[in-house]
Amino acid sequence: MAKTQKQNERLTRVGSGTPMGELLRRYWHPVSVAAELDENPVRRIRHLGEDLTLFRSKTGTHGLVGDVCPHRCASLEYGIPDARGLRCMYHGWLFDEAGTCVEQPFDDRVNPTARFRDKVKIKAYPVEELGGLLFAYLGPLPAPLLPRWDLMVRDDLLRAVDIHPIPCNWLQCMDNSLDPIHFEFLHAGFGNYQLERQGRPPGMKAARHVKIDFDVFEYGITKHRLLEGEPETADEWAIGHPILFPATLAIGNEGNAGLHFRVPVDDTHTIQYTYSTTARTAAMAPRPMTYAYEILFDEDGKLIRPVDRILQQDIVAWVAQGPISPRTEEHLSAGDTGVILYHKLLNENMDRVARGEDPLGTIRDARANDPMIVIRRGRERLGAFEVREELRPAIWSTTKAS
Amino acid sequence: MAKTQKQNERLTRVGSGTPMGELLRRYWHPVSVAAELDENPVRRIRHLGEDLTLFRSKTGTHGLVGDVCPHRCASLEYGIPDARGLRCMYHGWLFDEAGTCVEQPFDDRVNPTARFRDKVKIKAYPVEELGGLLFAYLGPLPAPLLPRWDLMVRDDLLRAVDIHPIPCNWLQCMDNSLDPIHFEFLHAGFGNYQLERQGRPPGMKAARHVKIDFDVFEYGITKHRLLEGEPETADEWAIGHPILFPATLAIGNEGNAGLHFRVPVDDTHTIQYTYSTTARTAAMAPRPMTYAYEILFDEDGKLIRPVDRILQQDIVAWVAQGPISPRTEEHLSAGDTGVILYHKLLNENMDRVARGEDPLGTIRDARANDPMIVIRRGRERLGAFEVREELRPAIWSTTKAS
Amino acid sequence: MAKTQKQNERLTRVGSGTPMGELLRRYWHPVSVAAELDENPVRRIRHLGEDLTLFRSKTGTHGLVGDVCPHRCASLEYGIPDARGLRCMYHGWLFDEAGTCVEQPFDDRVNPTARFRDKVKIKAYPVEELGGLLFAYLGPLPAPLLPRWDLMVRDDLLRAVDIHPIPCNWLQCMDNSLDPIHFEFLHAGFGNYQLERQGRPPGMKAARHVKIDFDVFEYGITKHRLLEGEPETADEWAIGHPILFPATLAIGNEGNAGLHFRVPVDDTHTIQYTYSTTARTAAMAPRPMTYAYEILFDEDGKLIRPVDRILQQDIVAWVAQGPISPRTEEHLSAGDTGVILYHKLLNENMDRVARGEDPLGTIRDARANDPMIVIRRGRERLGAFEVREELRPAIWSTTKAS
Repeated sequence: MAKTQKQNERLTRVGSGTPMGELLRRYWHPVSVAAELDENPVRRIRHLGEDLTLFRSKTGTHGLVGDVCPHRCASLEYGIPDARGLRCMYHGWLFDEAGTCVEQPFDDRVNPTARFRDKVKIKAYPVEELGGLLFAYLGPLPAPLLPRWDLMVRDDLLRAVDIHPIPCNWLQCMDNSLDPIHFEFLHAGFGNYQLERQGRPPGMKAARHVKIDFDVFEYGITKHRLLEGEPETADEWAIGHPILFPATLAIGNEGNAGLHFRVPVDDTHTIQYTYSTTARTAAMAPRPMTYAYEILFDEDGKLIRPVDRILQQDIVAWVAQGPISPRTEEHLSAGDTGVILYHKLLNENMDRVARGEDPLGTIRDARANDPMIVIRRGRERLGAFEVREELRPAIWSTTKAS
Repeated sequence: MAKTQKQNERLTRVGSGTPMGELLRRYWHPVSVAAELDENPVRRIRHLGEDLTLFRSKTGTHGLVGDVCPHRCASLEYGIPDARGLRCMYHGWLFDEAGTCVEQPFDDRVNPTARFRDKVKIKAYPVEELGGLLFAYLGPLPAPLLPRWDLMVRDDLLRAVDIHPIPCNWLQCMDNSLDPIHFEFLHAGFGNYQLERQGRPPGMKAARHVKIDFDVFEYGITKHRLLEGEPETADEWAIGHPILFPATLAIGNEGNAGLHFRVPVDDTHTIQYTYSTTARTAAMAPRPMTYAYEILFDEDGKLIRPVDRILQQDIVAWVAQGPISPRTEEHLSAGDTGVILYHKLLNENMDRVARGEDPLGTIRDARANDPMIVIRRGRERLGAFEVREELRPAIWSTTKAS
Repeated sequence: MAKTQKQNERLTRVGSGTPMGELLRRYWHPVSVAAELDENPVRRIRHLGEDLTLFRSKTGTHGLVGDVCPHRCASLEYGIPDARGLRCMYHGWLFDEAGTCVEQPFDDRVNPTARFRDKVKIKAYPVEELGGLLFAYLGPLPAPLLPRWDLMVRDDLLRAVDIHPIPCNWLQCMDNSLDPIHFEFLHAGFGNYQLERQGRPPGMKAARHVKIDFDVFEYGITKHRLLEGEPETADEWAIGHPILFPATLAIGNEGNAGLHFRVPVDDTHTIQYTYSTTARTAAMAPRPMTYAYEILFDEDGKLIRPVDRILQQDIVAWVAQGPISPRTEEHLSAGDTGVILYHKLLNENMDRVARGEDPLGTIRDARANDPMIVIRRGRERLGAFEVREELRPAIWSTTKAS
């Protein structure tokens, strides 16, 4: 049954004060690759519908504050990093990472006893660095612990991040991850059609799903698929893949694992931090995490690249549903049980937050988090689709570089 | 007398359910050059304010359907052509050219008796190919016959089509065709001024109109002009040029004739299919119709090309009237009798449609259409303007190539 | 105390009929460099929220008229200059510089006695040329005299104009000129930080203001600043710099003086005509005024150039306050006394206009204006900041060229 407009808005809107906005504000989300601040230590960002200024101070600490100086409303995106925080470019008012105004140069000099600076304060949110990403928490304090997912912590991995700006609502990205069936057409059918239009033979067999299943566990939902011709002992069925609640997909297998963080920018824009790892053998030196932006659509929403890779095909499907998918018009059917379960879980957890409770997956006990949270992974990767050997790197890669 | 805002809206709005939208839906309009589907067999188009997907199936038939799959609302612009119609890229739901869902791969497999596919249907409109163009009909069925204008059918012609996207309402294009007087200034005056700014001598004499006249005939309006120094036997007066109701200009003379189809994209955008022919002598081999896009304005509405040609000058005048000409501010005068007659005819035919009658020029009898509808043309071309010999090809050409 | 939304709108909105729009319409503002019409004698401009057509007739006179021909509403930006005014491109209706329709070619020929042309008239405003700029006056007639500021009239100067399109409300530019304190951070602090990011040493000392003061005089406000370590006889304190009411900054010192005309395009766009002069010695030949556009922001509001110069830093601060600075959120403090005085003066003069009186600085007596109005200037330039010798030309230049 299609949703009402109100039900769709409840599931999709991310602004402060909305039910989903409040749920999402109970979790840490990546808001930048840490290395992005090497080039310019002050970045204007938009996150959960809020315009904010992310900065690295002169001592290397990070802050996330409002975007406007309360003096004469100049944007802090042009702020000057200081040892104690960030200064407004215009008259040098200085704010620390808690948003406190700690200096007003002219007023402090001509009128030091008035302490006008105590009258102004700006919005400020905690920031933590982990695994090369900067995570922010916009909810009520005390903040829960930043989850130490294994891939963010392990030192036996090589890392790369692709940053994918996506011009649509975040929920479309997530629905896709709860929907194993789409592989048959979006990747096999549409992928083969892309090759056909280039005059090339099909890249994979059109395998069919026999059944799909989903379990809720302490950090989210595990999805399972059984493909034609595979035994029930196959990893994709027996182990499955987790979706980390509320908005992260754990992807890949041992030796080739990733986390896809879907970060709502606002109601109609999302950034995916596509965090990819490969095993680093003892013989290999560690190397710094690399990062790159990959833009698939121009400003008019027109696709500007070929979409040979699985990930790109997924992104096209998300965006093809429009800025916010009009779920009032949709017809969920037999393959959408995962989507239905996920929406139910979102609704239940919005209710929990409304009652003042911690939602699913909140971590407040360091013993559950240290040294890391290990995600169980299988060894296989949709073998029934029989991806052609020479196409595998091209099709499976999640990063622009490869 | 200026129009009221309501009168102007009645004449200009093209959406479904508006009086003009309903009138325009009683006619076939070109929506693509057929050859455009060679490169990509699926095109997203906008026509009469509706977002649609035009496609060529694997068997070469054409369909025009809604833009969104009713399953999860993915755009069909990324659809996969099939022998039986068009498949959604996401989960492979298949729709035929009548909009019927004929396959839902996963549901058909796991729940074949439920026939969930009978519960969904998408919008679909008939498409016909003629003379290298694809025409669509968006009105109530049964559709009238697609008019077989001589230039679309004759095999003794060489054909070229220019596609002109025009960022304004369609009626401005038509008003221009009902207004012979503008030639004096838009083409002679403004055209000569363009040359003057390039340091070149005038291209044509500033001939004057002695009188103008208009007749309604079974397919539209014929316009007549008598220029200073010409006899009443001159073709421009004695024969005239037809405007094929509601939105096509028949242009040129024997051996150099064209049809300018003005196709409303939405209230503020039009595409002109500028269909040009030249006589093919017995000695010349037939050759495929060529086509090209010609863009005159950038996204800010700024003119980005010189406008040396008659057709380009016309387009500039249309766009110069704004997205929808504010006819509440206009002052029609002695030269606007054709415009007034045309608006009257539009109003009468909107009334006919409202009464459930066929409007002017509807063809339902094949005997009137087969093998073709011959348009009577003169041999002359505004000789009184004395276009300089060497400039004639440049000034008169309607195609980008020449 | 922060302003109310209503107070902020009263101070910022420039449209016809708004209090500030009416005040601004009591002054002449530059709307073009005269030489811009050499290339194309007809320019579409937007000024004080009105869309207008500026033209130079065939006899070299200038006119500023409405943007639309009242016949069929074609834009006059494509008009054809005539000896008697400007003709519409479409049917040749001719308007003189007073907006009177002096010819309707077809109507005049076929229906000469009807004099339909007497029924139409277009908006028209006076234009005057001075010092290489074209000034327009949009207020009630009789217009006051166009002020003959010394720099516009003197023949012992070399002139250059930079045209700075600025995507924000005009008042932000002016507030900046009434606020000497910003020099400490926007220029010394932020400027030095720009150099630091390029790996270069600071360009100037971070001098501090001891006190600031402001006087109202017959043409506006004079601002005074006393810097640490300077005597009260220093020119910056003893003479100061004038802001010519309502929207012009007189800048520089003897031998290097300029006028920065801030011209409201509409509520959220401004053009600064940055008029710069240098002394021309007897040995130097006069040379024509040069002009250039300098664009600092792209269409998304992103800064696209380094901002090494004082003027560029100022512009960044203006734009950083947003399209219209949200003064409901601001916290004016000890350094903002000039801004407060200026807003008070604006409010008083809006009241004067509402009472039918001439506002501050209106000149109606030619004896006050002829041969010129001399502005008293000092010889120094913020010496306490000790700008590094080799950086001075780069930092102080107001023109793109240097």
